[in-house]
Amino acid sequence: MNKENRFQIENLGDPQHKSPLQLSTVRGDKIFNFVNDADRLVFDLSIDNYKHCLNSGEEPLCLDKAGPRQEIFFDPKQTTAAIVTCGGLCPGINNVIRGVVMALHYFYGIKRIIGVPYGYEGLNPEVGHDFVELTPEKVKDIHQFGGTFLGSSRGGQDVSTMVDTLEQNKVDMLFAIGGDGTLKGVNAIGEEIQSRNAMISVVGIPKTIDNDIDLIDESFGFETAFDVASPIIRDAHNEATGAYNGISIVKLMGRDSGFIAASAALAMPVVNFVLIPEMEFALEGENGFLGALKKRLDRKKHAVIVVAEGAGQHLFDKKSEVKDASGNIKHSDIGLFLKQKITERFTETPVTIKYIDPSYIVRSAPANSIDSVYCSRLAYHAVHGAMAGKTKFVACKVNNKFVYVPISEVTKKRKKIDLEGEFWFSVLQSTGQPFFLG
Amino acid sequence: MNKENRFQIENLGDPQHKSPLQLSTVRGDKIFNFVNDADRLVFDLSIDNYKHCLNSGEEPLCLDKAGPRQEIFFDPKQTTAAIVTCGGLCPGINNVIRGVVMALHYFYGIKRIIGVPYGYEGLNPEVGHDFVELTPEKVKDIHQFGGTFLGSSRGGQDVSTMVDTLEQNKVDMLFAIGGDGTLKGVNAIGEEIQSRNAMISVVGIPKTIDNDIDLIDESFGFETAFDVASPIIRDAHNEATGAYNGISIVKLMGRDSGFIAASAALAMPVVNFVLIPEMEFALEGENGFLGALKKRLDRKKHAVIVVAEGAGQHLFDKKSEVKDASGNIKHSDIGLFLKQKITERFTETPVTIKYIDPSYIVRSAPANSIDSVYCSRLAYHAVHGAMAGKTKFVACKVNNKFVYVPISEVTKKRKKIDLEGEFWFSVLQSTGQPFFLG
Amino acid sequence: MNKENRFQIENLGDPQHKSPLQLSTVRGDKIFNFVNDADRLVFDLSIDNYKHCLNSGEEPLCLDKAGPRQEIFFDPKQTTAAIVTCGGLCPGINNVIRGVVMALHYFYGIKRIIGVPYGYEGLNPEVGHDFVELTPEKVKDIHQFGGTFLGSSRGGQDVSTMVDTLEQNKVDMLFAIGGDGTLKGVNAIGEEIQSRNAMISVVGIPKTIDNDIDLIDESFGFETAFDVASPIIRDAHNEATGAYNGISIVKLMGRDSGFIAASAALAMPVVNFVLIPEMEFALEGENGFLGALKKRLDRKKHAVIVVAEGAGQHLFDKKSEVKDASGNIKHSDIGLFLKQKITERFTETPVTIKYIDPSYIVRSAPANSIDSVYCSRLAYHAVHGAMAGKTKFVACKVNNKFVYVPISEVTKKRKKIDLEGEFWFSVLQSTGQPFFLG
Amino acid sequence: MNKENRFQIENLGDPQHKSPLQLSTVRGDKIFNFVNDADRLVFDLSIDNYKHCLNSGEEPLCLDKAGPRQEIFFDPKQTTAAIVTCGGLCPGINNVIRGVVMALHYFYGIKRIIGVPYGYEGLNPEVGHDFVELTPEKVKDIHQFGGTFLGSSRGGQDVSTMVDTLEQNKVDMLFAIGGDGTLKGVNAIGEEIQSRNAMISVVGIPKTIDNDIDLIDESFGFETAFDVASPIIRDAHNEATGAYNGISIVKLMGRDSGFIAASAALAMPVVNFVLIPEMEFALEGENGFLGALKKRLDRKKHAVIVVAEGAGQHLFDKKSEVKDASGNIKHSDIGLFLKQKITERFTETPVTIKYIDPSYIVRSAPANSIDSVYCSRLAYHAVHGAMAGKTKFVACKVNNKFVYVPISEVTKKRKKIDLEGEFWFSVLQSTGQPFFLG
Repeated sequence: MNKENRFQIENLGDPQHKSPLQLSTVRGDKIFNFVNDADRLVFDLSIDNYKHCLNSGEEPLCLDKAGPRQEIFFDPKQTTAAIVTCGGLCPGINNVIRGVVMALHYFYGIKRIIGVPYGYEGLNPEVGHDFVELTPEKVKDIHQFGGTFLGSSRGGQDVSTMVDTLEQNKVDMLFAIGGDGTLKGVNAIGEEIQSRNAMISVVGIPKTIDNDIDLIDESFGFETAFDVASPIIRDAHNEATGAYNGISIVKLMGRDSGFIAASAALAMPVVNFVLIPEMEFALEGENGFLGALKKRLDRKKHAVIVVAEGAGQHLFDKKSEVKDASGNIKHSDIGLFLKQKITERFTETPVTIKYIDPSYIVRSAPANSIDSVYCSRLAYHAVHGAMAGKTKFVACKVNNKFVYVPISEVTKKRKKIDLEGEFWFSVLQSTGQPFFLG
Repeated sequence: MNKENRFQIENLGDPQHKSPLQLSTVRGDKIFNFVNDADRLVFDLSIDNYKHCLNSGEEPLCLDKAGPRQEIFFDPKQTTAAIVTCGGLCPGINNVIRGVVMALHYFYGIKRIIGVPYGYEGLNPEVGHDFVELTPEKVKDIHQFGGTFLGSSRGGQDVSTMVDTLEQNKVDMLFAIGGDGTLKGVNAIGEEIQSRNAMISVVGIPKTIDNDIDLIDESFGFETAFDVASPIIRDAHNEATGAYNGISIVKLMGRDSGFIAASAALAMPVVNFVLIPEMEFALEGENGFLGALKKRLDRKKHAVIVVAEGAGQHLFDKKSEVKDASGNIKHSDIGLFLKQKITERFTETPVTIKYIDPSYIVRSAPANSIDSVYCSRLAYHAVHGAMAGKTKFVACKVNNKFVYVPISEVTKKRKKIDLEGEFWFSVLQSTGQPFFLG
Repeated sequence: MNKENRFQIENLGDPQHKSPLQLSTVRGDKIFNFVNDADRLVFDLSIDNYKHCLNSGEEPLCLDKAGPRQEIFFDPKQTTAAIVTCGGLCPGINNVIRGVVMALHYFYGIKRIIGVPYGYEGLNPEVGHDFVELTPEKVKDIHQFGGTFLGSSRGGQDVSTMVDTLEQNKVDMLFAIGGDGTLKGVNAIGEEIQSRNAMISVVGIPKTIDNDIDLIDESFGFETAFDVASPIIRDAHNEATGAYNGISIVKLMGRDSGFIAASAALAMPVVNFVLIPEMEFALEGENGFLGALKKRLDRKKHAVIVVAEGAGQHLFDKKSEVKDASGNIKHSDIGLFLKQKITERFTETPVTIKYIDPSYIVRSAPANSIDSVYCSRLAYHAVHGAMAGKTKFVACKVNNKFVYVPISEVTKKRKKIDLEGEFWFSVLQSTGQPFFLG
Repeated sequence: MNKENRFQIENLGDPQHKSPLQLSTVRGDKIFNFVNDADRLVFDLSIDNYKHCLNSGEEPLCLDKAGPRQEIFFDPKQTTAAIVTCGGLCPGINNVIRGVVMALHYFYGIKRIIGVPYGYEGLNPEVGHDFVELTPEKVKDIHQFGGTFLGSSRGGQDVSTMVDTLEQNKVDMLFAIGGDGTLKGVNAIGEEIQSRNAMISVVGIPKTIDNDIDLIDESFGFETAFDVASPIIRDAHNEATGAYNGISIVKLMGRDSGFIAASAALAMPVVNFVLIPEMEFALEGENGFLGALKKRLDRKKHAVIVVAEGAGQHLFDKKSEVKDASGNIKHSDIGLFLKQKITERFTETPVTIKYIDPSYIVRSAPANSIDSVYCSRLAYHAVHGAMAGKTKFVACKVNNKFVYVPISEVTKKRKKIDLEGEFWFSVLQSTGQPFFLG
């Protein structure tokens, strides 16, 4: 075994300054130790991976531990940080903003923190939004509210323009809170910065209510999301049982990945069908969805269906595809589609269908306590990484540990529910729905 | 003043039995007194009404106090009661069912209580739903859940058939929990019963999430309804401020009356426009809604609009009217209509519109504590009235006191928000919206 | 009938100014009408009261309708208002502060509003707290939080000193949010002002989590209080059923009146005993509490007891009485006392007792939606009254209508639960506890 | 590397039956695969551990993956299962009961499931509680309620007697839901069973609201616990700021480990001091707690203190130690102790102290959605392991993966907060409290 095998985080340069944090480097003094770059964690903890590496002489793939470094790149006295939030709302954005500001201000003593308003638009002077100065006083209560204190927007802006703005405002580090598109955007900003030999660190903090960022454990806000969604499923159950042959359809977020739909259904076990983008299902036919629904109604006189917004897109005509400002294909509304198809099918047995779309209610909720803790720690780690001069990385959790991963690694593909995994099996067992529909 | 002036409650006949309740008839013994029919309460408590009566010699219009009577009509040992729930869901239905069952069983010792499934359909043997036997054990926990334990349906059934069913099953009293249509229905049942000289008491317990039953104070479930709706308005606010020129539209219940929309907006004072069925408003024109919205956006860059489902129906083409199973005119969707009109109008200034329709989430919520207390007491009073042989009445609250009122009086017209009243004035002041729109 | 019979509100003098509110004086124009002093409401709406008045020729006792007057006493351009919050926390205080500030600022255009910090202490310059300037910007979000934005303190300060402070700061009107002691205090301030011929209006807004202010309907925060308390009773039930012979004791507020304990128990019908200050009960003896508890345990193996803090004080030795800063007698802890007595009694049957005291959790909760609406309207009415030059009154609700009542009338005695009333009867029926204990 | 190095799970014998689950053994068919005993996961994922193994030739310590086995030990048609819940309440117990029953019944077709009432007492016939038969119908709604459907008790019973009871009732597998003592107890039962050569599987499902079971990730109910506790800390903050020099003390669970206190404080960042059992702190002296509190009050005029019940026990006289029924040392009340010490210290500056102990409110809460999902999956895995004939193991999560671990390994010592770890560092940073107190 000679060669290190790790997701290599890039650095702006060698650290030049001593961290102002009063930490330790030895165990036993009851003081937290600085983390150093040699502290790595194995990514795949199956014994098979170990055996493979031992046999082949390769080191197993490792991730860099997140945390404060003893030597840092930026001089806190002369550092300016900026924060931007992009894309749709997700619980916990304000907690992350608050955490970044608190860590910059109190841990490192950074006095100039710029809030970029309305997403990447705020980095384009032509749009003309004004920067917001961020201070502990201004952000101290914002974690109690959902939404984003800074405002957001979808879609990107010209990378060169945005880097111009950062340079003109003497920004040394940019924290971008956003999903797949945002992360790719900030990575592009990082590349443009490097091509100019500028010394600006760019950091991504993955925000995706769909929980579809690859490699990482759950993204912040996700647990709140299904915690908010799951009582709504109970409401749907009340509506379904309130009518003879009552059917409730709850549409939840999940463009490409059905994590929220599946988790909420598992949390509130009154759901009879979960339909997710990862699965192909037929409406008609012997094992089709409508037939399975018929059997359920015959037996129990009511049914609850949870459908992810990206499910069943194969049932629509592809020609009419439209894209949104973020470049994502706009999905046809599977919830309304199902409502219509069920109505058409059940003409003899009259059914009562209630369609519930709580998307904005879920997105705009404040973070619950679990996500609050997570967001604070995530924000702290993002700041530690940036101060150390690392760039083009995300702060995140993998195997329940905080690590840094290159943005380029987490944006290669979307994380999806493994239909052969234990999680999906739990969902099938809990709902009692057939393994295959169609 | 010679003549009694009261909303006269009809009786099946003279009370023949002694109440099994161990109550008192004198003050000072720390035991609750039986209520008697002479205990009346003045309806209009303005001094002008008093003066008018004084001058004219008329007695002021009075309502009968609700409560247990010393002499009752039915023999508890041989009485069968039935409960039916009709129409859309509303918080507190299960609390009322529970309260009626508990009062019948524990207060009066009635052993046979029939749950009629799926609304008036359950009284039509041809539809073929089976009765449910109700016991304290079965209903003791149902108040913690929203929905209706008995199921519901919309629309009526043949009155004669329903009375046949009651007679065949030896039902002595029917408690109907429902709105305007249900109450008219149970009144018709009561009339058919009288025409047959049958001795069956029919009692209405007004259930209307719109709070639009005339004469009475707030109907049960209404306070829960806007208590559930109002945090959703905060969510809408988060969505609105989360985008540049963000607009959130929240559609709430209110076919003919805007009480929920107005109350929820007053409870969560982030609302800029409340649109209700009682007001006519123009979209276009100098004082039209769209112009007012434009001014708001110019000033604040976001807006929250709460609209009752029955608002703005004058803006639609009347020819396409459709009726639902309850005979109500199906409203065109004013929320989607506004979304479209706003989008069309704001082509130059791009706006981001989020449309939220939480209707089923509000309807299916469990009663909060205030409504729980209210529902229990309402149910107890309904039972006391029925046992006394009163019929074709509702148990309700007027001027903060529990009274009995003839069904025919509360169904004459719908209660609406008085646009010249202090409540609407409070709403206007809280939102800052113009007195008139158009 | 010659003589008016009303609770007479005092005025500082004749109104000199036209209200800036653009209201109407006629019906039919869809604009709210100014209220005038002749608009009165009968207090006692029983038909017996009417008959008595008609026979005797006396006018029935009336209350003044609350609302904006067309002619006002103070010149908005030169008016300074002050707000003070006293005594223990109660849900809704911040809503009232917000409502008063908004009404003063937006309705009447008053620019100088002083927040008096930490209760009456803030009016004593020797204590040395600084005034806070209140603006819409500062208070716009405070309704979402419990507690009091201004801070509070218990007990009074020298009246003369406080009036000096008001005069020196050119305060024209003082809004005091507090309970019995606070209201008596602000009335004394009002009297001192009158003796100096000063033109300062003093207004009380009754705040009592115990709901024990006489004459008025429920005080603000009360409904939230038992809405917060009632799920805690469900928790207590979980604890009780979680152990063999499990007993949970929940102590709730209620120094002299058991409204919260009784309402919370009625809202969460798992309670077996409610003990309130209004009732005397024995521990021992044939019908004593401990015997009744024994019977309950024998039958069901668990019991839930809700006790108001002021209940059972007759069981303690009176000699050891201590008073708190507000001059109230400090109650001995009835909860711990019961726990001890039960433990002593049940030595043979081992019992598991869980004692829960959620007082601060209830007191510090934010107002629910019902109280939010109530607080805003109450605050608006308080402002209308003060602007009209009325003084030494409270804004409140009686018979479900907003009225003004002289402070001296509502502080004559405490409101208590009528043990012979329908409310307490409902509680007894719901819990199944004996009418008398001992 | 020759030798397997794993936490070895014991088996009752070789599996004899085919699992009734219709699963797969190959990837690519979109069907979940059976797990087999060779599927192991490395425990320590640091690269140092890997290198150490590489150098020494030892296999890294591994854990067995949880999940359904293709060959099972018990014949579902003839299997009887029993469930017992012991110790204090914790959110999620009912979810686990429900999950075990559902998995036994629906996955494996087991028809006889015994609920053991009131903890280990229920296995002692002399105490005389009757078994409860558990069916899907009976448990389907219990997850919505806190507490334990089966009742609980503290402390153990004679092991031999309990095994007699299991044998007499032909129980084949016992699921014990409980903490450290319960797990040791069920392990002893398992040993007694083995000494009798009986074929009964015993399974532990770790339940500890303190989150102090060693080796495992968070235990079920823990996230709900601090999710419930953290708004109470906000209440405490309201109380603290509501008075001049207001101090709130919130006592939370945590006998030996301060996880709830620390997590709740991190989730609601208004806390100024967190005191946990893991830290020794002095009250007096230059760096003592009281001095630090004084500084805080001088600067901010209010303070919020969160203290774990087991903190500061070194400050008490050890002679007066008492043990509870579970054999745990009863802690002196650190909350009341602090209240007294603070009162004594701050005689010149008057302070207002509010002491809040929400323990039972936290313990008896229903599981939130995150814990609901977790409990279901945990229960499923426990059942899979038992059916495979494994015994004396716990189902749990380690490194975010479900695994089986021998009971003896997780009960060797308690898990504690590492004062040198990143988590505690986050808490210190968030509160701003000194690294050392005294």
